[in-house]
Amino acid sequence: MKNIALKLMYVGTRYHGWQVQKNAVTVAETLEKAISAVVCHPVRVTGCGRTDAGVHARVYIANFYTASSIPIARLPLALNTRLPDDIVVEQAAEVPPEFNAIGSCVKKEYTYLIYNSRVRNAFYVDRAYFYPVRLNERVMNRAAALFSGTQDFAAVQSAGTPVRSTVRTVHYCLVKRRGDLLTLRICADGFLYNMVRTSAGTILYAALDKLSPEDIPALLAGGNRSAAGPVLPPGGLYLSRLWYREEVGTDRILGN
Amino acid sequence: MKNIALKLMYVGTRYHGWQVQKNAVTVAETLEKAISAVVCHPVRVTGCGRTDAGVHARVYIANFYTASSIPIARLPLALNTRLPDDIVVEQAAEVPPEFNAIGSCVKKEYTYLIYNSRVRNAFYVDRAYFYPVRLNERVMNRAAALFSGTQDFAAVQSAGTPVRSTVRTVHYCLVKRRGDLLTLRICADGFLYNMVRTSAGTILYAALDKLSPEDIPALLAGGNRSAAGPVLPPGGLYLSRLWYREEVGTDRILGN
Repeated sequence: MKNIALKLMYVGTRYHGWQVQKNAVTVAETLEKAISAVVCHPVRVTGCGRTDAGVHARVYIANFYTASSIPIARLPLALNTRLPDDIVVEQAAEVPPEFNAIGSCVKKEYTYLIYNSRVRNAFYVDRAYFYPVRLNERVMNRAAALFSGTQDFAAVQSAGTPVRSTVRTVHYCLVKRRGDLLTLRICADGFLYNMVRTSAGTILYAALDKLSPEDIPALLAGGNRSAAGPVLPPGGLYLSRLWYREEVGTDRILGN
Repeated sequence: MKNIALKLMYVGTRYHGWQVQKNAVTVAETLEKAISAVVCHPVRVTGCGRTDAGVHARVYIANFYTASSIPIARLPLALNTRLPDDIVVEQAAEVPPEFNAIGSCVKKEYTYLIYNSRVRNAFYVDRAYFYPVRLNERVMNRAAALFSGTQDFAAVQSAGTPVRSTVRTVHYCLVKRRGDLLTLRICADGFLYNMVRTSAGTILYAALDKLSPEDIPALLAGGNRSAAGPVLPPGGLYLSRLWYREEVGTDRILGN
Protein backbone atom coordinates (compact mmCIF):
# COMPACT_ATOMS: atom_id res chain seq x y z
CA MET A 1 0.00 0.00 0.00
CA LYS A 2 1.21 3.46 -0.85
CA ASN A 3 0.22 6.56 1.06
CA ILE A 4 -0.46 9.36 -1.44
CA ALA A 5 -0.73 13.04 -0.54
CA LEU A 6 -2.58 15.40 -2.88
CA LYS A 7 -2.24 19.16 -2.99
CA LEU A 8 -5.58 20.69 -4.02
CA MET A 9 -7.36 23.98 -4.34
CA TYR A 10 -11.11 24.49 -4.46
CA VAL A 11 -13.78 27.14 -4.71
CA GLY A 12 -16.14 26.19 -1.89
CA THR A 13 -19.27 27.99 -3.14
CA ARG A 14 -21.03 24.92 -4.54
CA TYR A 15 -20.09 22.54 -1.70
CA HIS A 16 -21.36 21.77 1.77
CA GLY A 17 -17.84 21.95 3.08
CA TRP A 18 -15.03 19.43 3.03
CA GLN A 19 -16.31 16.60 5.18
CA VAL A 20 -18.51 13.81 3.71
CA GLN A 21 -22.08 14.05 4.96
CA LYS A 22 -25.45 12.60 4.03
CA ASN A 23 -27.66 14.34 1.46
CA ALA A 24 -25.15 17.07 0.60
CA VAL A 25 -22.38 17.33 -1.97
CA THR A 26 -19.01 17.85 -0.30
CA VAL A 27 -15.47 18.29 -1.57
CA ALA A 28 -14.23 15.07 0.08
CA GLU A 29 -16.98 12.99 -1.48
CA THR A 30 -16.39 14.51 -4.94
CA LEU A 31 -12.67 13.84 -4.60
CA GLU A 32 -13.18 10.27 -3.33
CA LYS A 33 -15.33 9.43 -6.35
CA ALA A 34 -12.67 10.75 -8.74
CA ILE A 35 -9.82 8.91 -6.97
CA SER A 36 -11.81 5.67 -6.75
CA ALA A 37 -12.45 5.80 -10.51
CA VAL A 38 -8.74 6.31 -11.21
CA VAL A 39 -7.29 3.70 -8.83
CA CYS A 40 -10.15 1.22 -9.45
CA HIS A 41 -11.06 0.60 -5.81
CA PRO A 42 -13.08 2.52 -3.19
CA VAL A 43 -11.01 5.16 -1.39
CA ARG A 44 -11.46 7.20 1.76
CA VAL A 45 -9.51 10.46 1.96
CA THR A 46 -8.22 12.22 5.07
CA GLY A 47 -8.24 16.00 4.77
CA CYS A 48 -6.14 18.59 6.60
CA GLY A 49 -9.23 20.09 8.21
CA ARG A 50 -12.97 20.58 7.94
CA THR A 51 -13.83 23.65 5.96
CA ASP A 52 -17.46 24.77 6.21
CA ALA A 53 -20.00 25.19 3.42
CA GLY A 54 -18.94 28.02 1.10
CA VAL A 55 -15.37 28.26 2.47
CA HIS A 56 -12.54 28.09 -0.09
CA ALA A 57 -9.10 26.53 -0.11
CA ARG A 58 -6.23 28.07 -2.03
CA VAL A 59 -4.26 25.11 -0.78
CA TYR A 60 -5.49 21.90 0.81
CA ILE A 61 -3.74 18.60 1.56
CA ALA A 62 -5.49 15.25 1.58
CA ASN A 63 -4.06 11.72 1.74
CA PHE A 64 -5.30 8.25 0.87
CA TYR A 65 -3.95 4.69 0.70
CA THR A 66 -3.84 2.64 -2.47
CA ALA A 67 -2.23 -0.48 -3.92
CA SER A 68 -2.73 0.88 -7.43
CA SER A 69 0.34 0.95 -9.65
CA ILE A 70 -0.66 4.13 -11.50
CA PRO A 71 2.39 6.40 -11.86
CA ILE A 72 2.00 9.16 -9.27
CA ALA A 73 3.08 11.86 -11.71
CA ARG A 74 -0.01 11.06 -13.80
CA LEU A 75 -2.47 11.36 -10.91
CA PRO A 76 -3.15 15.14 -11.08
CA LEU A 77 -4.16 15.07 -14.75
CA ALA A 78 -6.11 11.80 -14.35
CA LEU A 79 -8.03 13.27 -11.41
CA ASN A 80 -8.56 16.71 -12.92
CA THR A 81 -10.22 15.26 -16.00
CA ARG A 82 -12.75 13.60 -13.63
CA LEU A 83 -13.19 16.50 -11.20
CA PRO A 84 -15.47 19.52 -11.70
CA ASP A 85 -13.68 22.78 -12.59
CA ASP A 86 -13.93 24.18 -9.06
CA ILE A 87 -11.71 21.46 -7.54
CA VAL A 88 -8.16 21.16 -8.89
CA VAL A 89 -5.41 18.70 -7.94
CA GLU A 90 -2.14 20.56 -8.31
CA GLN A 91 0.31 17.87 -7.24
CA ALA A 92 0.57 14.33 -5.93
CA ALA A 93 3.40 12.68 -4.00
CA GLU A 94 4.06 9.46 -2.15
CA VAL A 95 4.50 10.15 1.56
CA PRO A 96 5.59 7.95 4.51
CA PRO A 97 2.93 5.45 5.73
CA GLU A 98 2.47 7.36 8.99
CA PHE A 99 1.68 10.66 7.23
CA ASN A 100 -1.81 11.92 8.03
CA ALA A 101 -3.11 15.11 6.38
CA ILE A 102 -4.58 16.40 9.62
CA GLY A 103 -2.42 14.72 12.27
CA SER A 104 0.91 15.66 10.68
CA CYS A 105 -0.12 19.27 10.09
CA VAL A 106 1.60 21.62 12.54
CA LYS A 107 0.31 25.04 11.45
CA LYS A 108 -2.38 26.47 9.18
CA GLU A 109 -3.03 29.93 7.84
CA TYR A 110 -6.51 31.19 6.98
CA THR A 111 -7.20 34.38 5.04
CA TYR A 112 -10.41 36.38 5.38
CA LEU A 113 -11.23 38.93 2.65
CA ILE A 114 -13.44 41.97 3.16
CA TYR A 115 -14.37 44.04 0.10
CA ASN A 116 -14.66 47.46 1.66
CA SER A 117 -16.07 49.92 -0.84
CA ARG A 118 -19.20 52.05 -1.08
CA VAL A 119 -20.58 49.79 -3.84
CA ARG A 120 -20.25 46.02 -3.99
CA ASN A 121 -18.07 44.35 -6.60
CA ALA A 122 -19.69 41.76 -8.87
CA PHE A 123 -16.40 39.86 -9.18
CA TYR A 124 -16.15 39.29 -5.42
CA VAL A 125 -19.61 37.76 -4.92
CA ASP A 126 -19.13 34.67 -2.67
CA ARG A 127 -15.38 35.42 -2.62
CA ALA A 128 -15.14 38.34 -0.18
CA TYR A 129 -17.43 39.79 2.47
CA PHE A 130 -18.83 43.10 1.28
CA TYR A 131 -18.84 45.91 3.82
CA PRO A 132 -19.89 49.33 2.49
CA VAL A 133 -18.80 51.57 5.39
CA ARG A 134 -15.14 52.55 5.31
CA LEU A 135 -13.15 50.55 7.89
CA ASN A 136 -9.95 51.76 9.51
CA GLU A 137 -7.38 49.05 8.84
CA ARG A 138 -4.98 50.41 11.48
CA VAL A 139 -7.58 49.92 14.22
CA MET A 140 -8.33 46.46 12.81
CA ASN A 141 -4.67 45.52 12.76
CA ARG A 142 -4.25 46.68 16.36
CA ALA A 143 -7.20 44.48 17.34
CA ALA A 144 -5.88 41.58 15.25
CA ALA A 145 -2.46 41.65 16.93
CA LEU A 146 -4.13 40.94 20.29
CA PHE A 147 -5.31 37.54 19.03
CA SER A 148 -1.75 36.27 18.78
CA GLY A 149 -0.15 34.14 21.48
CA THR A 150 -1.21 31.05 23.41
CA GLN A 151 -4.67 31.85 24.70
CA ASP A 152 -8.05 30.30 25.41
CA PHE A 153 -10.20 31.02 22.34
CA ALA A 154 -13.53 29.73 23.74
CA ALA A 155 -15.00 33.24 23.35
CA VAL A 156 -14.62 33.08 19.55
CA GLN A 157 -15.81 29.48 19.14
CA SER A 158 -19.26 28.37 18.00
CA ALA A 159 -21.02 25.43 19.61
CA GLY A 160 -20.12 22.26 17.75
CA THR A 161 -18.13 19.07 18.24
CA PRO A 162 -16.75 19.16 21.82
CA VAL A 163 -12.97 19.62 21.99
CA ARG A 164 -10.59 18.64 24.79
CA SER A 165 -9.06 22.09 25.10
CA THR A 166 -9.97 25.50 23.73
CA VAL A 167 -6.40 26.79 24.11
CA ARG A 168 -4.62 27.44 20.81
CA THR A 169 -1.42 29.20 19.80
CA VAL A 170 -1.93 31.94 17.22
CA HIS A 171 1.43 32.66 15.56
CA TYR A 172 0.27 35.83 13.83
CA CYS A 173 -2.93 37.69 13.09
CA LEU A 174 -2.80 40.79 10.92
CA VAL A 175 -4.88 43.02 8.69
CA LYS A 176 -3.70 44.80 5.55
CA ARG A 177 -5.48 47.00 3.05
CA ARG A 178 -4.80 47.09 -0.67
CA GLY A 179 -7.23 49.48 -2.33
CA ASP A 180 -10.75 48.33 -1.45
CA LEU A 181 -9.65 44.89 -0.28
CA LEU A 182 -8.94 44.18 3.39
CA THR A 183 -7.00 40.97 4.03
CA LEU A 184 -6.95 39.33 7.45
CA ARG A 185 -4.38 36.55 7.81
CA ILE A 186 -4.29 34.33 10.87
CA CYS A 187 -1.90 31.46 11.49
CA ALA A 188 -2.27 28.99 14.36
CA ASP A 189 -1.42 25.46 15.45
CA GLY A 190 -5.14 24.70 15.23
CA PHE A 191 -8.52 26.40 15.03
CA LEU A 192 -11.76 25.96 16.95
CA TYR A 193 -15.12 25.80 15.18
CA ASN A 194 -15.84 29.19 13.52
CA MET A 195 -12.80 30.70 15.25
CA VAL A 196 -11.53 32.60 12.20
CA ARG A 197 -14.91 33.96 11.13
CA THR A 198 -15.75 35.04 14.70
CA SER A 199 -12.31 36.60 15.20
CA ALA A 200 -12.86 38.48 11.92
CA GLY A 201 -16.26 39.64 13.20
CA THR A 202 -14.67 40.80 16.45
CA ILE A 203 -11.93 42.69 14.60
CA LEU A 204 -14.66 44.27 12.43
CA TYR A 205 -16.47 45.36 15.62
CA ALA A 206 -13.28 47.12 16.73
CA ALA A 207 -13.27 49.12 13.48
CA LEU A 208 -16.95 49.99 14.05
CA ASP A 209 -16.13 51.16 17.60
CA LYS A 210 -18.50 48.55 19.05
CA LEU A 211 -15.54 47.47 21.14
CA SER A 212 -12.03 48.77 21.68
CA PRO A 213 -8.97 46.77 20.52
CA GLU A 214 -7.81 47.00 24.12
CA ASP A 215 -10.92 45.06 25.25
CA ILE A 216 -9.83 41.96 23.33
CA PRO A 217 -7.50 40.36 25.91
CA ALA A 218 -10.25 40.55 28.58
CA LEU A 219 -12.85 39.39 26.06
CA LEU A 220 -10.76 36.29 25.29
CA ALA A 221 -9.86 35.70 28.95
CA GLY A 222 -13.56 35.93 29.88
CA GLY A 223 -14.45 33.09 27.50
CA ASN A 224 -17.90 34.55 26.94
CA ARG A 225 -19.09 34.07 23.33
CA SER A 226 -21.68 36.86 23.59
CA ALA A 227 -18.95 39.46 24.20
CA ALA A 228 -17.34 38.74 20.81
CA GLY A 229 -18.40 39.92 17.35
CA PRO A 230 -20.56 38.05 14.82
CA VAL A 231 -19.55 35.06 12.68
CA LEU A 232 -18.78 36.61 9.29
CA PRO A 233 -20.08 34.81 6.14
CA PRO A 234 -18.14 31.83 4.71
CA GLY A 235 -17.51 33.26 1.21
CA GLY A 236 -14.71 35.52 2.49
CA LEU A 237 -12.76 32.67 4.08
CA TYR A 238 -9.84 30.83 2.46
CA LEU A 239 -7.54 28.16 3.82
CA SER A 240 -4.35 29.73 2.47
CA ARG A 241 -1.23 28.03 3.79
CA LEU A 242 -0.18 24.79 5.50
CA TRP A 243 2.91 23.59 7.31
CA TYR A 244 3.76 19.94 7.99
CA ARG A 245 6.32 18.19 10.17
CA GLU A 246 9.58 18.19 8.26
CA GLU A 247 10.12 14.44 8.31
CA VAL A 248 6.99 13.73 6.24
CA GLY A 249 8.47 15.44 3.20
CA THR A 250 5.46 17.48 2.10
CA ASP A 251 7.40 20.75 2.01
CA ARG A 252 8.38 19.78 -1.50
CA ILE A 253 4.80 19.66 -2.74
CA LEU A 254 3.69 22.61 -0.62
CA GLY A 255 6.48 24.84 -1.85
CA ASN A 256 6.98 26.30 1.66
CA MET B 1 -37.24 63.91 -19.91
CA LYS B 2 -33.88 63.32 -18.31
CA ASN B 3 -31.08 61.35 -19.92
CA ILE B 4 -29.44 59.15 -17.26
CA ALA B 5 -26.08 57.42 -17.63
CA LEU B 6 -25.27 54.41 -15.46
CA LYS B 7 -21.82 53.06 -14.72
CA LEU B 8 -22.02 49.28 -14.27
CA MET B 9 -19.90 46.22 -13.88
CA TYR B 10 -20.97 42.65 -14.54
CA VAL B 11 -19.74 39.07 -14.52
CA GLY B 12 -20.88 37.80 -17.91
CA THR B 13 -20.81 34.06 -17.16
CA ARG B 14 -24.57 33.63 -16.68
CA TYR B 15 -25.64 35.92 -19.54
CA HIS B 16 -26.03 35.62 -23.28
CA GLY B 17 -24.17 38.85 -23.71
CA TRP B 18 -25.29 42.43 -23.39
CA GLN B 19 -27.83 42.87 -26.17
CA VAL B 20 -31.50 41.93 -25.67
CA GLN B 21 -32.43 38.81 -27.65
CA LYS B 22 -35.29 36.34 -27.75
CA ASN B 23 -35.22 33.24 -25.51
CA ALA B 24 -32.01 34.14 -23.70
CA VAL B 25 -31.26 36.13 -20.57
CA THR B 26 -29.06 39.13 -21.32
CA VAL B 27 -27.54 41.89 -19.23
CA ALA B 28 -29.52 44.64 -21.02
CA GLU B 29 -32.84 42.87 -20.45
CA THR B 30 -32.05 42.24 -16.76
CA LEU B 31 -31.09 45.89 -16.32
CA GLU B 32 -34.16 47.18 -18.19
CA LYS B 33 -36.45 45.19 -15.90
CA ALA B 34 -34.77 46.64 -12.80
CA ILE B 35 -34.85 50.23 -14.13
CA SER B 36 -38.48 49.92 -15.27
CA ALA B 37 -39.47 48.76 -11.77
CA VAL B 38 -37.70 51.72 -10.18
CA VAL B 39 -38.87 54.50 -12.52
CA CYS B 40 -42.35 52.95 -12.95
CA HIS B 41 -42.42 52.93 -16.75
CA PRO B 42 -40.94 50.68 -19.46
CA VAL B 43 -37.37 51.62 -20.32
CA ARG B 44 -35.00 50.80 -23.17
CA VAL B 45 -31.28 51.12 -22.43
CA THR B 46 -28.50 51.95 -24.87
CA GLY B 47 -25.22 50.24 -24.02
CA CYS B 48 -21.66 51.23 -24.92
CA GLY B 49 -21.19 48.05 -26.94
CA ARG B 50 -22.33 44.49 -27.47
CA THR B 51 -20.41 42.10 -25.31
CA ASP B 52 -20.80 38.42 -26.23
CA ALA B 53 -22.10 35.58 -24.06
CA GLY B 54 -19.69 34.95 -21.18
CA VAL B 55 -17.73 38.21 -21.64
CA HIS B 56 -17.34 40.42 -18.55
CA ALA B 57 -17.35 44.16 -17.97
CA ARG B 58 -15.27 45.75 -15.24
CA VAL B 59 -16.83 48.98 -16.44
CA TYR B 60 -19.81 49.52 -18.72
CA ILE B 61 -21.85 52.62 -19.52
CA ALA B 62 -25.53 52.54 -20.45
CA ASN B 63 -28.05 55.37 -20.80
CA PHE B 64 -31.83 55.67 -20.76
CA TYR B 65 -34.49 58.41 -20.79
CA THR B 66 -36.99 58.93 -18.02
CA ALA B 67 -39.45 61.54 -16.72
CA SER B 68 -39.23 59.99 -13.26
CA SER B 69 -38.46 62.38 -10.42
CA ILE B 70 -36.47 59.82 -8.41
CA PRO B 71 -33.31 61.49 -7.01
CA ILE B 72 -30.44 60.30 -9.19
CA ALA B 73 -28.18 59.73 -6.18
CA ARG B 74 -30.60 57.03 -5.00
CA LEU B 75 -30.66 55.13 -8.30
CA PRO B 76 -27.62 52.85 -7.72
CA LEU B 77 -28.94 51.45 -4.44
CA ALA B 78 -32.53 51.20 -5.75
CA LEU B 79 -31.29 49.27 -8.79
CA ASN B 80 -28.81 47.08 -6.95
CA THR B 81 -31.49 45.80 -4.59
CA ARG B 82 -33.40 44.61 -7.69
CA LEU B 83 -30.45 43.31 -9.70
CA PRO B 84 -28.80 39.90 -9.30
CA ASP B 85 -25.40 39.94 -7.55
CA ASP B 86 -23.43 39.61 -10.79
CA ILE B 87 -24.59 42.98 -12.15
CA VAL B 88 -23.76 46.08 -10.10
CA VAL B 89 -24.63 49.73 -10.75
CA GLU B 90 -21.75 51.78 -9.37
CA GLN B 91 -22.93 55.29 -10.24
CA ALA B 92 -25.67 57.24 -11.97
CA ALA B 93 -25.54 60.75 -13.42
CA GLU B 94 -27.72 63.02 -15.52
CA VAL B 95 -26.07 63.64 -18.90
CA PRO B 96 -26.89 66.00 -21.79
CA PRO B 97 -29.90 64.90 -23.95
CA GLU B 98 -27.64 64.13 -26.91
CA PHE B 99 -25.43 61.73 -24.91
CA ASN B 100 -25.52 58.20 -26.30
CA ALA B 101 -23.59 55.42 -24.53
CA ILE B 102 -22.28 54.00 -27.80
CA GLY B 103 -22.31 57.04 -30.10
CA SER B 104 -20.51 59.36 -27.67
CA CYS B 105 -17.86 56.79 -26.80
CA VAL B 106 -14.53 57.62 -28.41
CA LYS B 107 -12.25 54.82 -27.14
CA LYS B 108 -12.59 51.49 -25.39
CA GLU B 109 -10.09 49.20 -23.74
CA TYR B 110 -10.55 45.45 -23.52
CA THR B 111 -8.44 43.15 -21.35
CA TYR B 112 -7.87 39.49 -22.13
CA LEU B 113 -6.56 37.25 -19.31
CA ILE B 114 -4.63 34.03 -19.86
CA TYR B 115 -3.87 31.87 -16.83
CA ASN B 116 -0.60 30.33 -17.90
CA SER B 117 0.45 27.65 -15.47
CA ARG B 118 1.01 23.91 -15.64
CA VAL B 119 -2.17 23.27 -13.64
CA ARG B 120 -5.43 25.20 -13.97
CA ASN B 121 -6.62 27.48 -11.18
CA ALA B 122 -10.10 26.83 -9.74
CA PHE B 123 -10.53 30.54 -8.95
CA TYR B 124 -10.08 31.56 -12.60
CA VAL B 125 -12.69 29.24 -14.11
CA ASP B 126 -14.72 31.33 -16.62
CA ARG B 127 -12.54 34.34 -15.70
CA ALA B 128 -9.30 33.63 -17.56
CA TYR B 129 -8.32 31.35 -20.43
CA PHE B 130 -6.21 28.48 -19.11
CA TYR B 131 -3.15 27.63 -21.17
CA PRO B 132 -0.83 25.02 -19.62
CA VAL B 133 2.26 25.41 -21.84
CA ARG B 134 4.57 28.22 -20.77
CA LEU B 135 4.18 31.22 -23.10
CA ASN B 136 6.90 33.77 -23.74
CA GLU B 137 5.39 37.15 -22.90
CA ARG B 138 8.15 39.05 -24.70
CA VAL B 139 7.29 37.37 -28.01
CA MET B 140 3.62 38.01 -27.33
CA ASN B 141 4.23 41.65 -26.57
CA ARG B 142 6.24 42.03 -29.78
CA ALA B 143 3.33 40.52 -31.72
CA ALA B 144 0.82 42.66 -29.82
CA ALA B 145 2.62 45.91 -30.65
CA LEU B 146 2.11 45.23 -34.35
CA PHE B 147 -1.67 45.47 -33.92
CA SER B 148 -1.43 49.15 -33.03
CA GLY B 149 -2.06 51.89 -35.56
CA THR B 150 -4.79 52.60 -38.14
CA GLN B 151 -5.16 49.36 -40.06
CA ASP B 152 -7.70 47.14 -41.75
CA PHE B 153 -8.63 44.48 -39.18
CA ALA B 154 -10.79 42.30 -41.47
CA ALA B 155 -8.36 39.39 -40.92
CA VAL B 156 -9.23 39.24 -37.20
CA GLN B 157 -12.98 39.71 -37.61
CA SER B 158 -15.61 36.97 -37.47
CA ALA B 159 -18.55 36.93 -39.86
CA GLY B 160 -21.43 38.86 -38.30
CA THR B 161 -23.36 42.08 -38.80
CA PRO B 162 -21.89 43.78 -41.91
CA VAL B 163 -19.93 46.95 -41.14
CA ARG B 164 -19.21 49.91 -43.43
CA SER B 165 -15.47 49.79 -42.87
CA THR B 166 -13.12 47.29 -41.27
CA VAL B 167 -10.47 49.94 -40.62
CA ARG B 168 -9.94 50.77 -36.95
CA THR B 169 -7.34 52.69 -34.97
CA VAL B 170 -5.70 50.67 -32.21
CA HIS B 171 -4.11 53.08 -29.73
CA TYR B 172 -2.14 50.41 -27.87
CA CYS B 173 -1.94 46.67 -27.64
CA LEU B 174 0.35 45.12 -25.06
CA VAL B 175 0.99 41.96 -23.07
CA LYS B 176 2.32 41.78 -19.52
CA ARG B 177 2.98 38.88 -17.19
CA ARG B 178 2.48 38.91 -13.43
CA GLY B 179 3.25 35.47 -12.07
CA ASP B 180 1.04 32.97 -13.88
CA LEU B 181 -1.31 35.61 -15.26
CA LEU B 182 -0.82 37.10 -18.73
CA THR B 183 -2.75 40.30 -19.37
CA LEU B 184 -3.39 41.57 -22.89
CA ARG B 185 -4.75 45.11 -23.05
CA ILE B 186 -5.98 46.60 -26.30
CA CYS B 187 -7.43 50.07 -26.75
CA ALA B 188 -9.11 51.23 -29.96
CA ASP B 189 -11.65 53.69 -31.33
CA GLY B 190 -13.87 50.69 -32.08
CA PHE B 191 -13.74 46.92 -32.42
CA LEU B 192 -14.98 44.52 -35.09
CA TYR B 193 -16.89 41.36 -34.16
CA ASN B 194 -14.55 39.00 -32.23
CA MET B 195 -11.59 41.27 -32.99
CA VAL B 196 -10.10 41.12 -29.48
CA ARG B 197 -10.50 37.39 -29.03
CA THR B 198 -9.06 36.68 -32.51
CA SER B 199 -6.19 39.12 -31.97
CA ALA B 200 -5.49 37.34 -28.66
CA GLY B 201 -5.52 34.00 -30.50
CA THR B 202 -3.12 35.36 -33.11
CA ILE B 203 -0.77 36.70 -30.42
CA LEU B 204 -0.95 33.28 -28.73
CA TYR B 205 0.03 31.67 -32.07
CA ALA B 206 3.11 33.88 -32.13
CA ALA B 207 4.14 32.54 -28.71
CA LEU B 208 3.59 29.00 -29.99
CA ASP B 209 5.77 29.72 -33.02
CA LYS B 210 2.85 28.96 -35.35
CA LEU B 211 3.55 32.36 -36.84
CA SER B 212 6.22 35.00 -36.35
CA PRO B 213 5.40 38.40 -34.83
CA GLU B 214 6.90 39.85 -38.00
CA ASP B 215 4.20 38.12 -40.07
CA ILE B 216 1.45 40.15 -38.45
CA PRO B 217 1.54 43.30 -40.63
CA ALA B 218 1.24 41.17 -43.79
CA LEU B 219 -1.42 38.99 -42.13
CA LEU B 220 -3.51 42.09 -41.36
CA ALA B 221 -2.85 43.68 -44.76
CA GLY B 222 -3.90 40.45 -46.50
CA GLY B 223 -7.31 40.55 -44.81
CA ASN B 224 -7.51 36.76 -44.84
CA ARG B 225 -9.25 35.39 -41.74
CA SER B 226 -7.75 31.92 -42.15
CA ALA B 227 -4.21 33.30 -41.73
CA ALA B 228 -4.99 34.53 -38.20
CA GLY B 229 -5.17 32.58 -34.95
CA PRO B 230 -8.27 31.12 -33.28
CA VAL B 231 -11.01 33.01 -31.44
CA LEU B 232 -10.11 32.52 -27.76
CA PRO B 233 -12.96 31.70 -25.30
CA PRO B 234 -15.15 34.52 -23.91
CA GLY B 235 -14.45 33.95 -20.18
CA GLY B 236 -11.02 35.63 -20.44
CA LEU B 237 -12.41 38.84 -21.95
CA TYR B 238 -13.23 41.99 -19.98
CA LEU B 239 -14.37 45.40 -21.15
CA SER B 240 -12.02 47.34 -18.90
CA ARG B 241 -11.98 51.06 -19.68
CA LEU B 242 -14.04 53.64 -21.59
CA TRP B 243 -13.47 57.17 -22.80
CA TYR B 244 -16.19 59.64 -23.80
CA ARG B 245 -16.20 62.98 -25.56
CA GLU B 246 -15.34 65.60 -22.98
CA GLU B 247 -18.44 67.72 -23.49
CA VAL B 248 -20.81 64.96 -22.33
CA GLY B 249 -19.42 65.12 -18.80
CA THR B 250 -19.05 61.39 -18.12
CA ASP B 251 -15.40 61.68 -17.10
CA ARG B 252 -16.69 62.47 -13.66
CA ILE B 253 -18.50 59.16 -13.28
CA LEU B 254 -15.84 57.19 -15.13
CA GLY B 255 -13.05 58.51 -12.99
CA ASN B 256 -10.72 58.79 -16.03
